[in-house]
Amino acid sequence: MRFPNLTIVGVGLIGGSIGLAAKKRGLVDHVRGVGRDAAKLELARKFGAIDEGVLELATAVREADLVIFCTPVDRIAAQVEEGARHCKRGTILTDAGSTKLEIVEAVARTLPAHVQFVGGHPLAGSEKKGVEHAQADLFVNRWTVLTPTRDTPDETVHRVASFWKALGASTAVMSAEHHDQALALTSHLPHLIASALAGLLPADWRDLTATGFRDTTRIASGDPDVWSPIFQQNRAAVLAALDQLEARLRLFRAALQKNDVAQIDSLLTQGKKVRDALGS
Amino acid sequence: MRFPNLTIVGVGLIGGSIGLAAKKRGLVDHVRGVGRDAAKLELARKFGAIDEGVLELATAVREADLVIFCTPVDRIAAQVEEGARHCKRGTILTDAGSTKLEIVEAVARTLPAHVQFVGGHPLAGSEKKGVEHAQADLFVNRWTVLTPTRDTPDETVHRVASFWKALGASTAVMSAEHHDQALALTSHLPHLIASALAGLLPADWRDLTATGFRDTTRIASGDPDVWSPIFQQNRAAVLAALDQLEARLRLFRAALQKNDVAQIDSLLTQGKKVRDALGS
Repeated sequence: MRFPNLTIVGVGLIGGSIGLAAKKRGLVDHVRGVGRDAAKLELARKFGAIDEGVLELATAVREADLVIFCTPVDRIAAQVEEGARHCKRGTILTDAGSTKLEIVEAVARTLPAHVQFVGGHPLAGSEKKGVEHAQADLFVNRWTVLTPTRDTPDETVHRVASFWKALGASTAVMSAEHHDQALALTSHLPHLIASALAGLLPADWRDLTATGFRDTTRIASGDPDVWSPIFQQNRAAVLAALDQLEARLRLFRAALQKNDVAQIDSLLTQGKKVRDALGS
Repeated sequence: MRFPNLTIVGVGLIGGSIGLAAKKRGLVDHVRGVGRDAAKLELARKFGAIDEGVLELATAVREADLVIFCTPVDRIAAQVEEGARHCKRGTILTDAGSTKLEIVEAVARTLPAHVQFVGGHPLAGSEKKGVEHAQADLFVNRWTVLTPTRDTPDETVHRVASFWKALGASTAVMSAEHHDQALALTSHLPHLIASALAGLLPADWRDLTATGFRDTTRIASGDPDVWSPIFQQNRAAVLAALDQLEARLRLFRAALQKNDVAQIDSLLTQGKKVRDALGS
């Protein structure tokens, strides 16, 4: 289950953490990092996340046994298309994008027969960016979702799942549609809400925020270059999740307008019950 | 600026932290805790938050130089009314309630002339409850808001502010109206949103949540017995804050529906800018 030559495209928080974790656990012999900025690649090398920085995707994937694309979701499909052409026979390609359907469908249209691809999404991360925040244990006790199509060989899913398990993650296999629908509610809508709430705060009320506001808005600090393409790719599901949220906000509004204490209590209790079940 | 006899009514997270902090900093000689549950008072005593537990409010305030009410906001005004009658001349009463206008107005109608009251609100806390989560440093580098009326003597405001500063807090003085309007946006609306979002999560998607969902919904674990009265007392301001949020959600919705990338980027960037300015 080793991948002697690993290539990571996009060596930021996620890509850097994959490199650190794979090296620490002895799953790889040589890790190549691909990026457009030589200085950032050098930082990743010094940080121990990669062994070698490479500016050219074609060069970086030539010997790769496994290629993981960790770039913003609007760039992954095109990079897979370009990279796959230069891979040797049998190379496995996967990604770490927060949306899956658009990527998986685009890759299915272009993937050459001599390589395999399966979509992936590690449910780990942070509002922080950059390899300097990467951690070898980022995926421990987290889930990674894999989204094969009907044409993806079981062996490919199995090998990529084994890689993530070796990094400490649990893996779940589901359709790209199901992934995108669930993540719209569990990840993309929370980001939208955090951003909307943060955007409302007047500068002179900043001192009047405490841990509640700070927790609720923390992910609004995420990089818009990462998040804007996520919203674009998963528009329909995010809009459906937003419908659900707005319906629930209307319940709160009606309860407050009527001063319906039983309903206010009931709504708060429902939210508490779910949140308590998640743990810290 | 010492208060030899301190009485804390409601010895949970906030009241317990006040007791720990005041004792640690040598601001008091004897701390009495008031509650309805003898076992909880004994726990607070063992925990070092109080020196003595007292079930009767009248008894507990008789010698007090300072009385701080840390009970849910729907109980504070009546407890101040009852307690004030049994205080010696010159006792200062204050509170730690998350709403101010209804409490301050109710107290103004009933306060006897031989004592003074000023409303207070330490902007610190947690989704956790109970004296077992109290911390002596809970107020360090946090703000406490004081909300005097036109009739509150400056000396009273000054002495209560000095007490909070001695616990490590900064203090701000503003009207109860201004406090409630600001906190509706900075605290009560975030709680409502967290609760609404948590309430949407189907049980079988719990594994598909990561730090974003967990941060955004953390305060939904707060005690409904504490939060429901806050929403009832600050209904009008919370509804106004909810109007603002819904207007902003409509901007996100329109941008997603039109796939208006520039507007999505702009909204995310506005949120990030505000959140980055708050720090961790």
